[in-house]
Amino acid sequence: MQGDSLHPEGTVEIVAPSVWRIRFGEPERFVPSRFRESPPDLEGLSDLPQGELELELSEVRCQLKPGRTVVTIPCQEPGEQIYGFGLDPGAYGQKGLRKRLTVCASVLGKTGASHGPVPFYVSTKGYGVWVDTARVPWVHVARLQPVHRTRNRRGGQEVVFDIPGGQGVDVFFFGGPTLREAVQRYNLFSGGGCMPPMWGLGLKYRNYTKADKETVMAVANEIREKEIPCDMMGLEPGWQTHAYSCSFVWSDERFPKHQEMLEALVGMGYKVNLWEHAYVSPVSPLYAKLEKKSGEYTVWGGLVVDFADMEASEIFARYHDENLVKEGVSGFKADECDRQPITDCTPFNYPYCSGFPSGIDGEQMTQLYGTLYQRSIQSVFRKRNQRSWGDVRATGSLSAPLPFNLYSDAYQFDEYLRQLLNASFAGLLWSPEVRNANTLEELLNRVAMSAMAPQMCLNIWFMPHPVWKQYERDKNERGDLLSEEEEREVAGKIKEIVELRMSLLPYLYSCFARYKMEGLPPVRSLLLDFPEDRELRDVDDQFLFGNHLLVAPYMGSACAREVLFPKGEDWIDFYSGRRHRGGERIQMEGEPGGVPLFIRDNALLPLAKPVPFVNEDTVFELSVKVVGDAPRPFVLLEDDGESYDFEKGIFNKVTLSWKEGKGEVSRDGSFDGRRYQIVEWSRLGE
Amino acid sequence: MQGDSLHPEGTVEIVAPSVWRIRFGEPERFVPSRFRESPPDLEGLSDLPQGELELELSEVRCQLKPGRTVVTIPCQEPGEQIYGFGLDPGAYGQKGLRKRLTVCASVLGKTGASHGPVPFYVSTKGYGVWVDTARVPWVHVARLQPVHRTRNRRGGQEVVFDIPGGQGVDVFFFGGPTLREAVQRYNLFSGGGCMPPMWGLGLKYRNYTKADKETVMAVANEIREKEIPCDMMGLEPGWQTHAYSCSFVWSDERFPKHQEMLEALVGMGYKVNLWEHAYVSPVSPLYAKLEKKSGEYTVWGGLVVDFADMEASEIFARYHDENLVKEGVSGFKADECDRQPITDCTPFNYPYCSGFPSGIDGEQMTQLYGTLYQRSIQSVFRKRNQRSWGDVRATGSLSAPLPFNLYSDAYQFDEYLRQLLNASFAGLLWSPEVRNANTLEELLNRVAMSAMAPQMCLNIWFMPHPVWKQYERDKNERGDLLSEEEEREVAGKIKEIVELRMSLLPYLYSCFARYKMEGLPPVRSLLLDFPEDRELRDVDDQFLFGNHLLVAPYMGSACAREVLFPKGEDWIDFYSGRRHRGGERIQMEGEPGGVPLFIRDNALLPLAKPVPFVNEDTVFELSVKVVGDAPRPFVLLEDDGESYDFEKGIFNKVTLSWKEGKGEVSRDGSFDGRRYQIVEWSRLGE
Repeated sequence: MQGDSLHPEGTVEIVAPSVWRIRFGEPERFVPSRFRESPPDLEGLSDLPQGELELELSEVRCQLKPGRTVVTIPCQEPGEQIYGFGLDPGAYGQKGLRKRLTVCASVLGKTGASHGPVPFYVSTKGYGVWVDTARVPWVHVARLQPVHRTRNRRGGQEVVFDIPGGQGVDVFFFGGPTLREAVQRYNLFSGGGCMPPMWGLGLKYRNYTKADKETVMAVANEIREKEIPCDMMGLEPGWQTHAYSCSFVWSDERFPKHQEMLEALVGMGYKVNLWEHAYVSPVSPLYAKLEKKSGEYTVWGGLVVDFADMEASEIFARYHDENLVKEGVSGFKADECDRQPITDCTPFNYPYCSGFPSGIDGEQMTQLYGTLYQRSIQSVFRKRNQRSWGDVRATGSLSAPLPFNLYSDAYQFDEYLRQLLNASFAGLLWSPEVRNANTLEELLNRVAMSAMAPQMCLNIWFMPHPVWKQYERDKNERGDLLSEEEEREVAGKIKEIVELRMSLLPYLYSCFARYKMEGLPPVRSLLLDFPEDRELRDVDDQFLFGNHLLVAPYMGSACAREVLFPKGEDWIDFYSGRRHRGGERIQMEGEPGGVPLFIRDNALLPLAKPVPFVNEDTVFELSVKVVGDAPRPFVLLEDDGESYDFEKGIFNKVTLSWKEGKGEVSRDGSFDGRRYQIVEWSRLGE
Repeated sequence: MQGDSLHPEGTVEIVAPSVWRIRFGEPERFVPSRFRESPPDLEGLSDLPQGELELELSEVRCQLKPGRTVVTIPCQEPGEQIYGFGLDPGAYGQKGLRKRLTVCASVLGKTGASHGPVPFYVSTKGYGVWVDTARVPWVHVARLQPVHRTRNRRGGQEVVFDIPGGQGVDVFFFGGPTLREAVQRYNLFSGGGCMPPMWGLGLKYRNYTKADKETVMAVANEIREKEIPCDMMGLEPGWQTHAYSCSFVWSDERFPKHQEMLEALVGMGYKVNLWEHAYVSPVSPLYAKLEKKSGEYTVWGGLVVDFADMEASEIFARYHDENLVKEGVSGFKADECDRQPITDCTPFNYPYCSGFPSGIDGEQMTQLYGTLYQRSIQSVFRKRNQRSWGDVRATGSLSAPLPFNLYSDAYQFDEYLRQLLNASFAGLLWSPEVRNANTLEELLNRVAMSAMAPQMCLNIWFMPHPVWKQYERDKNERGDLLSEEEEREVAGKIKEIVELRMSLLPYLYSCFARYKMEGLPPVRSLLLDFPEDRELRDVDDQFLFGNHLLVAPYMGSACAREVLFPKGEDWIDFYSGRRHRGGERIQMEGEPGGVPLFIRDNALLPLAKPVPFVNEDTVFELSVKVVGDAPRPFVLLEDDGESYDFEKGIFNKVTLSWKEGKGEVSRDGSFDGRRYQIVEWSRLGE
């Protein structure tokens, strides 16, 4: 078109094995790649099979127009489907949609507005595309009808990124051969997936926001008395002298001698996690230090830290290190780093036009704030060679190496599940936390869904009493509690579900190791393992929990559902041992909180005897379920579970294999300790 | 702030009496002022009293940042309130809100997304501000809290325009002394308000979308039989061979020998209005002519006309002239020139990044499409020296001279009313049309509200039978009609309300003349006449209908409400003559479809004997209501009511005055004909 179209020749470069970059024009200064947590894992990328790019790079076009950079990527395979764009709660298959990839605190249909918008997508044709921008792009996913259809411009056969700012952009392409490898490559390019501390895979219990020392200790004791396994105690805003905005100072009123409480909790096997947000109150000791290193406008009267300035980030980190982590805090919940939706006319957030001393603007900062906030916090633990496990309310591109789980206010089962699946296409971890419920069935189904996620979390922040005393919000708030008998029943059922998770902990931990080393998400869409199975393309309510387990959770208060098995393998019911053929569709019925769980044929599944919590001395007693005639070996990661020494090679690969009707264990590596003791092998599904 | 801030010195210029412009940087090429329908009415502007600007222009700041132009305007008066931003259906007072002024087919809270977003606002301090941009700006209306508060940057005391595109912008300022004059100035600067044909102020009846010749004629006959005054018959999409997208060709199937029908309708006193949208179907004769003068992407397979190219606009106009207007069509309903909301992930519209041959982009085109579409249509009638009266689904800045009424799918009473008020701050006309209703009360209240608007319209497009046969949609659709007696009652009540409007037609017509000549909207917010009355600031459900009448419509199915009278004058009940003091608050109760109507003290209100329709020969028999001890004179505009000859001075001012207990009529001007015959003077409210 006349006037506005400059077609800059893109410069193509191979930046890593089977990763291509086209640079169009002059990319902006503040882009996600500038703030990456880790360099690309070139070794991991080299270990993947070579992947051709099923996309003609010469057909990728870019137009620099006044105020916008427009990138057009062909998407021409008949029947090609597109997945990704981050933590979209509304859409699974993406073709035909208009997305607006903005950090957002609410669900806006299928627009891609979410707590984790990522301009990365994969195609069933077997490639991935990532646009390195911190702007809020519109993306037209194979929906526009050009007037003149030519070979390269068939109707609705393009993905069009419409990016504010007319200077240029880097676009990255990730080879296949399938979307699985494209995702792996993106994650490895991001630096590889994060490795949680072993205790991070236990249960996190978040306390009532107004809890004080006494009530926190009471809950901590009660959990141990009830023998519900639990590893983490989270404190919500009330631990501070001032929030909102944050003082980052313990309230002596609610938590006199808080150090004693921290010691007591640690002594009981708990790791402590503190809620906060990164808007610094004038009453905070951090205020004076950051006043000149913050954005032009405040949020709740608090400074918006200019995290794009590494010095500001370090000041923020150092304060956390010297005041909170030093005293024994093991992790943080980084709240409110998202943004109210475009439909909200009285948002509390800073505007897109806000200036920051580093030169970044409010739009870019909004898109990057969550990621930069995580990086600041994570730097504290990195320096201490100590793994952390956090919660975060917003994240973005290249975030896989950051040990944080996304959460939100959304509470629909279908959205929770879709986010679990979509997260796996985008290097994100999603925590479908449990708050309240209207029925016991719903509560238990929620607990079950949380148990089958990267993080398991009971977030009881708005209820004064633990959820087993009353799961209905109103009643809990007014102290109308369950009878002792009912409470025993509820707590018992929750315990059972947590124990199921604890039995899978070494398995999940080892799946996380593959996330780190191979870029393969631990909890993921079935399409990542069965990219050719077309019937799975719309299945957004089943997923894989690690390599071996298919999960099909009950939704709402229901205890029945349909399950579709991926083609090409048999699937064995985890409980009954019943065998199902791939491609089969069955109706399940079960108990509330029961988790329909199926083991892939020819697998070895290590199950641990549940422990009440995990510490550096924990040794898991494993019994191995043997499935099928020719079970593939399974590799457990064995290390200290708490430090980053594994990155220096200090770990063992403990290989379980099944040979001639007998289990074998081999150990390879330089870690001295022992975390696993195999006590039993038993066949399932004969 | 470092890096992003260039503070270009704005250049201040007085561009018209009491109208200032600051030019920051280099404004974009495609802005509303480039496409203005009329030049500023400098004469009208000179006639207004001189107005100081209650705003320090030196305190207006602008930052050009990569990708954005940020304009900051102080708003420092304690208690200052802001109104405007176009047809916002959600918000009246604007302080504290974040607006996103995008053309939008839905209500999005109070964000300002609407069918008529206009970056113009007025302050109770007595000034107006307009930003000449076709971009979609964010506007932060006195809601941001800067970190450092200085004299010029007090918390929440700024209006911040965050405009995509970092080149620059023109900002216009309109002097007072009150917001009334600021609005007048903006409208006169736009070229003055439009002047409808006299018949345009009668009733418009829009037919069922699938109506054919026979059913249209049946309705036309029925209306005359029932003696419901009616001036316009509207045909919906079904008149064409193809819609959506549009062929602009009569369907021979539904309308064989359509010329005969047009002649018959015209013979019966009807003006015909045709629905269409400006997306040109491949089956249209216009397609080949516009194929190379359209946007990159289609809508419903139709070309998006590049109206920014005057040649394309003319081709479109000429086709209408030679094919439709020539045959007797008097106006058009320009539909679908709006855009689906940002929350819609499967919109039908062209993208912001769409290119056009003229060089305009899709974002600018979206914001301007409605206005440019109106201009093309209006050019047809201008050339013919014939006034038209149209409907349009989107409009924007400087639109006052365009004789089109905005409508939408919204149907809430409160939103309808708020749009009526907000339109009056922005040079827009709003048509709260009647479609269906759930109860008879609701129907009549809707008819009443429509009667007290710039355009009165029964839009029965989705119901096969006239609304008096059945107002409930489902029943109407399945032919479950009212009994004959019920029908007679409903039609009778509708007739009564239309007759009330017809009695006010000469009065309204003369108020429109003030819109044209003085920029004063005919239907408007009370604040425009009582800018000092603080109690009116939140009153968004009462308004002025012309100079003399306060309207307080019933909402929903209710027939009772509170009414607050503006201070400083008495108000006389139109029906009972009862006198109310200014500042008084009363509870009204009445009949369904009754319109609480109050005459300002000391007024002369001419009421016409209702006519079944208006044509060039119509002479109105007027009886003048005399109110108060010292009634102000009232000036009627007398002209042919159909051509633009009045612009050449061919009209009379017919002045009614009351002297020593007697009415006097004086006539001044060069129009030969007589439209008004004063038959009676009678006092009201003794």
